[in-house]
Amino acid sequence: MEHLGQHVIIELWGCQEGVINDAALVKTAMLDAVRAANATLLDINVHMFSPHGVTGVAVLSESHLSVHSWPEYGYVAADVFTCGETTNPRAAAKELQRHFGSTHCEVRELRRGRFPKSLSSPGKKRPALAAQEAVTV
Amino acid sequence: MEHLGQHVIIELWGCQEGVINDAALVKTAMLDAVRAANATLLDINVHMFSPHGVTGVAVLSESHLSVHSWPEYGYVAADVFTCGETTNPRAAAKELQRHFGSTHCEVRELRRGRFPKSLSSPGKKRPALAAQEAVTV
Repeated sequence: MEHLGQHVIIELWGCQEGVINDAALVKTAMLDAVRAANATLLDINVHMFSPHGVTGVAVLSESHLSVHSWPEYGYVAADVFTCGETTNPRAAAKELQRHFGSTHCEVRELRRGRFPKSLSSPGKKRPALAAQEAVTV
Repeated sequence: MEHLGQHVIIELWGCQEGVINDAALVKTAMLDAVRAANATLLDINVHMFSPHGVTGVAVLSESHLSVHSWPEYGYVAADVFTCGETTNPRAAAKELQRHFGSTHCEVRELRRGRFPKSLSSPGKKRPALAAQEAVTV
């Protein structure tokens, strides 16, 4: 592995307004998504905005999972950032889609922490296969 | 504006190990970055890992800011997700780079919440100019 983290960026449209505008339901969805990703939860914060909208951020041993909802558009922006070989961020994406009843889901994946070729003297060893080490609690 | 959020993805290399492995210094950097972005802090969590590495997540009225460090590689993955017209996520990126002493910074920006053209019957109005409304606390 030549990168340190996987970052799955999720655009969910056609979500159920009553679900994504309910902080308790969003939190439940996030907790199920963390489990589906086989990640370890350290902390979770969910905030309800007025007149509408929910933001939730889960801190993971393996990085983070975030959700921001715009109920008035049936839209949720979610991110699942994980590291290590044992997590499955795409499974988290599916779980969020299921909970929110999204009819249109776009997922893209970024590799984070790819050593830049243009950096000739990093003064550090090259990342390889050690992501797990950095996230042991 | 035809999107709801700006998501700035920041790859910081050549960071000072002593800074990015110190939870208090990472928290200070994050708080300064939130101010630089002209964002409003709702909550912040910073975790120190063993043997090394720090994760910090700030929940904002305008979405979130996250930092994950791999001190052994001098690397930090940071994300600044904001919405509304009054925030400047790139200013937050510069503040993080300055605090961490990064010698090599890569920034890319994603537009989140762009209404998908392929979605013919969203059942919702089209997003435009209303991001601010969704994040009023």
